[in-house]
Amino acid sequence: MTHYLKLEKIFSRLHHLEHLLAFAGWDRAVMMPEGGADARAAAMAEVGLLNMETLQSKELADTLAAAEAEVSQLDEWRRANLLEMKRAWRNATAVDADLVHAKTLAGAKCEQAWRKLRAQNDWAALEPLLTEVVRLTREEARQRAAASGLDPYDALMDLYEPGLRRQRLDPLFTRLKAFIPEFVQKVVDKQKSESILKSQGPFPTDRQRTLGLEAMKAVGFDFQHGRLDVSHHPFCGGAPRDVRITTRYQEDDFSTSFMGVLHETGHARYEQGLPPEWTTQPVGAARGMGMHESQSLFFEMQVSRSREFLQFVSPMMKRHLGGPHVPDAYWDPDNLYRIYTRVEPGYIRVDADEATYPAHVILRYEIEQGLIDGSVPVADLPRVWDEKMKSMLGLSTLGNDKNGCMQDIHWMDGAIGYFPTYTLGAMNAAQIFAAIERKLPDARDRIRKGEFEGVSQWLQENIWSRGCLMSIDELMTKATGEPLNPDHFIRHLETRYLA
Amino acid sequence: MTHYLKLEKIFSRLHHLEHLLAFAGWDRAVMMPEGGADARAAAMAEVGLLNMETLQSKELADTLAAAEAEVSQLDEWRRANLLEMKRAWRNATAVDADLVHAKTLAGAKCEQAWRKLRAQNDWAALEPLLTEVVRLTREEARQRAAASGLDPYDALMDLYEPGLRRQRLDPLFTRLKAFIPEFVQKVVDKQKSESILKSQGPFPTDRQRTLGLEAMKAVGFDFQHGRLDVSHHPFCGGAPRDVRITTRYQEDDFSTSFMGVLHETGHARYEQGLPPEWTTQPVGAARGMGMHESQSLFFEMQVSRSREFLQFVSPMMKRHLGGPHVPDAYWDPDNLYRIYTRVEPGYIRVDADEATYPAHVILRYEIEQGLIDGSVPVADLPRVWDEKMKSMLGLSTLGNDKNGCMQDIHWMDGAIGYFPTYTLGAMNAAQIFAAIERKLPDARDRIRKGEFEGVSQWLQENIWSRGCLMSIDELMTKATGEPLNPDHFIRHLETRYLA
Repeated sequence: MTHYLKLEKIFSRLHHLEHLLAFAGWDRAVMMPEGGADARAAAMAEVGLLNMETLQSKELADTLAAAEAEVSQLDEWRRANLLEMKRAWRNATAVDADLVHAKTLAGAKCEQAWRKLRAQNDWAALEPLLTEVVRLTREEARQRAAASGLDPYDALMDLYEPGLRRQRLDPLFTRLKAFIPEFVQKVVDKQKSESILKSQGPFPTDRQRTLGLEAMKAVGFDFQHGRLDVSHHPFCGGAPRDVRITTRYQEDDFSTSFMGVLHETGHARYEQGLPPEWTTQPVGAARGMGMHESQSLFFEMQVSRSREFLQFVSPMMKRHLGGPHVPDAYWDPDNLYRIYTRVEPGYIRVDADEATYPAHVILRYEIEQGLIDGSVPVADLPRVWDEKMKSMLGLSTLGNDKNGCMQDIHWMDGAIGYFPTYTLGAMNAAQIFAAIERKLPDARDRIRKGEFEGVSQWLQENIWSRGCLMSIDELMTKATGEPLNPDHFIRHLETRYLA
Repeated sequence: MTHYLKLEKIFSRLHHLEHLLAFAGWDRAVMMPEGGADARAAAMAEVGLLNMETLQSKELADTLAAAEAEVSQLDEWRRANLLEMKRAWRNATAVDADLVHAKTLAGAKCEQAWRKLRAQNDWAALEPLLTEVVRLTREEARQRAAASGLDPYDALMDLYEPGLRRQRLDPLFTRLKAFIPEFVQKVVDKQKSESILKSQGPFPTDRQRTLGLEAMKAVGFDFQHGRLDVSHHPFCGGAPRDVRITTRYQEDDFSTSFMGVLHETGHARYEQGLPPEWTTQPVGAARGMGMHESQSLFFEMQVSRSREFLQFVSPMMKRHLGGPHVPDAYWDPDNLYRIYTRVEPGYIRVDADEATYPAHVILRYEIEQGLIDGSVPVADLPRVWDEKMKSMLGLSTLGNDKNGCMQDIHWMDGAIGYFPTYTLGAMNAAQIFAAIERKLPDARDRIRKGEFEGVSQWLQENIWSRGCLMSIDELMTKATGEPLNPDHFIRHLETRYLA
């Protein structure tokens, strides 16, 4: 298997370059002084280009072709690794270089303008820039479709969630779409009579940090292999043996940071749990963005917003953040539970609760397909957005584009096909939690006692340690007994919000 | 000049990879959790190897050869750039790969063992490991000499201080060697009658940090293009537009960190002042280690330990670190001056004062040459060290090798030929300060008032902005009117310590 082994060497070098890029990116967001931006951007672009050249080289194409003849000599990990190498190669070679370049420029231009124009609610100025990005992304989709034999939109989704097709996703989202609006209305009605005690602290930043660190530790974040820092936009970065998560603190609200930290901890634990012996190879990476989001949402939504977890952390919160300025009743786990499970239709996806979030995603999923097949011209976005928001969440965004179709960064960059992974993650997370409860019927009691060992072990064995060894459907089937099934998510919502 | 321009592209890519390596190195020392070490080491080694492959490629050799024919079309910066490219190429190709590999391994093994063995004062166990490193370094020197036509020891020095030869250095060091012992004795006698008021604080770490930042700002550190952080061994790293310096704090002694920060600030300002338009090219880098050390010692020794600077910072120090536990008289600039100019022969180079430091360097310079020409076998190091220490500083290291020939990391790694640059730096710094005083006769008054603009501007114009445009001798001549002349350093010592 000479050829296969040569591929491992090539991909190992790519991985090491990606390692340096990942930490350069972390540093840029967390540490870098402003004046370092140009040199950093130039260095990262150059090394990104170098990696692209390797992926597009004749040497790699030839070696991949030659390695095909060696498949019978490869064990299952290596076979899976070869598949992932081919995916990386196909993704890197499917689109011609001029188009990649044009899209990068147009995306950067649109994104930069968007940062100002959104604040100014200036759709008219954004429209031509976004039109160009969408035009180039359609061409990209066409080229990717030609290379893979997929439908153009599927070819884009495949970049983020390998193997995901509309044919598979449509019935899942149709089911949710039928469920959500009425469900949300019921929950809102039910919660109307609930009284919530709120507090604006102040909650000093350093104590929020200490609380976050203690909670991370409680749910198993490995500080030998990771850190928590501060950045403007929270993220999970770094490398599997050195995972860097970030948060942002507000003194009058600790919840956003607290739940954000637990969300990123989910991403981090997935990374920390990936198979160390495959760390330099594509098969050693996480299994797509939907599965990644399932882990963050498992930790944030399934675990951390559960009544049991809030019973566990309530004394911890009070110890770090309590004081005469916060009424005791605030820390009552029931009060915290009401805060963390409050449902309220709103304009902004990133601020949305668990129940309304799928509506935001489905809206974008429907519109994205129209952008790619041409049935929704960019010029129509404000109108279409408003219609769908009204029908799904009862809110109009007419004349309020900054809180409508201008709110997300994704399309500005040409990242079309990504949004569905958020809700896939939510559905996967619910199904995984249900599977864990079948295996560990006392899972909720354990969480109430702050015992995460058993839950972690299940995730480690069934998800994290498997990297890209199998397809997402196989992974979910092997782990939970069936491929993704939206019933678990719907049951979770009904139990949590209406029971 | 097609070929030359191709070289610029190749070296620009090398630079961008070095950029990522620099920040990965900074991160390792400042941020990285312990468990990230293996992955980081693997990534850095791989990218180092990639750069080495580029430097050793036939493509580079051919392009360099072809660019020779274009010299007449190049302006002075490009001509200098081509010279630096050739130096980089020669340094990367002079030694055969097996030897590089063997030396890397032997050096890593010796250095790792040394960390324990030094603490245990176990010379016998270290000797065979160091013998192997020295053997391989001798072979390296032989190969470098063959490639460059230089004498073997000169070929090693040239790696750190391009153009430096024993023939040039010997008379300078001979002069110092004749001067130092008697001078030190006189200073020690003179200082015997001085009374010094000391304080162990405590000086809280966060206040030391604030003081350090304020002092950095006062002497012109550009925080738009750099940061101060904490690491076990202080260093200056990063990139010219984003310089990262570090320090380490002790609560019972703020002086070490304070002077250390000003030392690293000198390195940093050199980097920040390098010509931005050449930042990705070899000619845009600093002009050798001796010149780099001249800038750190200019800031630390020439400026910061001067009576005038201490008059300037005394109120700043007191404001940040003062309190009832520190007597007022401690902050008296005269007292501070006595503290910061105290001369005392000691065993340890890194703790040495300005007056005894050259003795430590000359001792190593003499011994190193013997290690390379074979006249000093490694087995004789303890004896030779002891003899030289007795003759130069009147201290015996017999049976005390941990404070003798085992104290420095340099030889353990095979870095032979580096030590002279420390004292070159001290001599250059004194000569530069003298030149500035000729241009700005009120330089000391300015320092007393905390006005560093004029001094900075002189350094910017005459040293920093010139990168590698000219040789060190030319640079010093153009800046100060003559090549390096030890008289300035000796006059500085006499004036500061005996006047």
